[in-house]
Amino acid sequence: MSRDPVALAERAREGHTASGARLIRMLEEGDEGAIEGLRALLPHAGRAHVLGITGPPGAGKSTLVDRTVGELRRRDRRVGVIAVDPSSPFSGGAILGDRVRMNTHATDPGVFIRSMATRGQLGGLSKTAFEATTVLDAMGFDVVLIETVGVGQDEVDVVELAHTTAVVSIPGMGDDIQAIKAGILEIGDVFIVNKADLPFADRVAKQLTAMLHLREPAEDGWDPPIVKTEAERAKGIAELVDTIERHRAHLTETGGLARKAIRRSERVFHELLRERAAARVLASQPDGGASVLEALGTGELDPYSAVEALLGG
Amino acid sequence: MSRDPVALAERAREGHTASGARLIRMLEEGDEGAIEGLRALLPHAGRAHVLGITGPPGAGKSTLVDRTVGELRRRDRRVGVIAVDPSSPFSGGAILGDRVRMNTHATDPGVFIRSMATRGQLGGLSKTAFEATTVLDAMGFDVVLIETVGVGQDEVDVVELAHTTAVVSIPGMGDDIQAIKAGILEIGDVFIVNKADLPFADRVAKQLTAMLHLREPAEDGWDPPIVKTEAERAKGIAELVDTIERHRAHLTETGGLARKAIRRSERVFHELLRERAAARVLASQPDGGASVLEALGTGELDPYSAVEALLGG
Repeated sequence: MSRDPVALAERAREGHTASGARLIRMLEEGDEGAIEGLRALLPHAGRAHVLGITGPPGAGKSTLVDRTVGELRRRDRRVGVIAVDPSSPFSGGAILGDRVRMNTHATDPGVFIRSMATRGQLGGLSKTAFEATTVLDAMGFDVVLIETVGVGQDEVDVVELAHTTAVVSIPGMGDDIQAIKAGILEIGDVFIVNKADLPFADRVAKQLTAMLHLREPAEDGWDPPIVKTEAERAKGIAELVDTIERHRAHLTETGGLARKAIRRSERVFHELLRERAAARVLASQPDGGASVLEALGTGELDPYSAVEALLGG
Repeated sequence: MSRDPVALAERAREGHTASGARLIRMLEEGDEGAIEGLRALLPHAGRAHVLGITGPPGAGKSTLVDRTVGELRRRDRRVGVIAVDPSSPFSGGAILGDRVRMNTHATDPGVFIRSMATRGQLGGLSKTAFEATTVLDAMGFDVVLIETVGVGQDEVDVVELAHTTAVVSIPGMGDDIQAIKAGILEIGDVFIVNKADLPFADRVAKQLTAMLHLREPAEDGWDPPIVKTEAERAKGIAELVDTIERHRAHLTETGGLARKAIRRSERVFHELLRERAAARVLASQPDGGASVLEALGTGELDPYSAVEALLGG
């Protein structure tokens, strides 16, 4: 297979999945040339519905995502999935490989699954997720589903790339979970109470309703619905997908799609600028910044003085 | 109270807690002048043992931290606690306020508790956590305990600021948890199986042992121990603190403390450089970058072209 990014982009648009996968990998690895492939795709992106699904560990997200993909397929939507995994700081690799995920859809050409490590992403995770989303979008996937574990800032950032963000919770989790729920309460467009057959599911739904009433009303007038699911038994999934599509329609009517595209673009811009501006400062030093880094290592310079030394007064 | 950062730094070193708290808040808010206060403290820092405690939501970390602080107090250590909370992307505030945390120690002058949002931190969370740690260290706290929810990259980064990282897990959690455990397996110096009275606690401990055997042996020869605790009933806590102190002694013997200090310093340097270099690029534009940002908003420029326009070819 070619490693020319523009050729890969072209082949990807023609429906050659492996070329799209290759281009995404090159972008993840920070391959400078791959940006040209991405640029070739940018004009063809913007049609897909980007759906973020987030929630704490143990909420049954994998099964829920699997069932949601199944329902979208029944509706003849092609689905790209980006699974953001907590990853090893050393290996940089995704812990849950694509292989162990969503076996159900592994042989379905209408489903593309990509795991993404949360580490070692040049320019940040949301930039990489944005790039993968753009490639899948331009490849003609109707829905790009981004699954994250919604705890850290990175994960929340990634979900904010989405047009529709669904936040999953389950009955009977501890205080930490409540805190997280509160933390991501404001980014949810749809709230899912999964494992709704467990005791106290109604109580969780009521708590969510109460908490949502405390939140500022959305500018665009959307009132986030709460959907109860039992992903294991595929219950509530059709209603969930109906709700997500209703949100999509609402965004289209209120100009929200364009607004979200701008926000996404600005976020990627800032990440990219930070990364490249810093690289350029180091490169502009005769020794590539080595002496400052050395002085930092010996403790001769503290980080604040080191940055001042590089940037001048 | 003065808002002069150097005066605040001086008062903080004399034991005036409110001055330290004020300085930390100024640093969090990105107050440029506050850096001078931090600089005044840097030469006095480096004595505290920085202890990171991380683990998934629901692992009982709050109680565990509470008990650990209690045990450290019994050993006459002064303890500063930095609790990193998942936070609202909109309010920027910490969800779990200091008030609701660790009531047990609220009136103990030997304990200082500070909650820190994971959002809106100029220059990144690990820089802010580093700064707060430095202030507490220079104030004479013997132990600075950083508590995070160990899932996202930010949280892992923060814990990597620590001399000793303790990773908490509990029996009977799902696949997600296993993945997270694998993800942070490599950063743990001590592993805690909390809620050890639950069924399968021994199995979790055995699984951890097996997973740790797959990991590369530590360069410094430290073999991470597994400690079983029941934080609710304060069981295993003394053993945990013994283990942590043994790790501290090991680091001192092997030069690990200095090594970790260098790594910490480099990390803060890179975050700071990225932030400031990007700010300078924007400031160097006649219109502060407004026209590029506008073209980004209209979609006339994509993020990649916008950064190139600012940085030149």
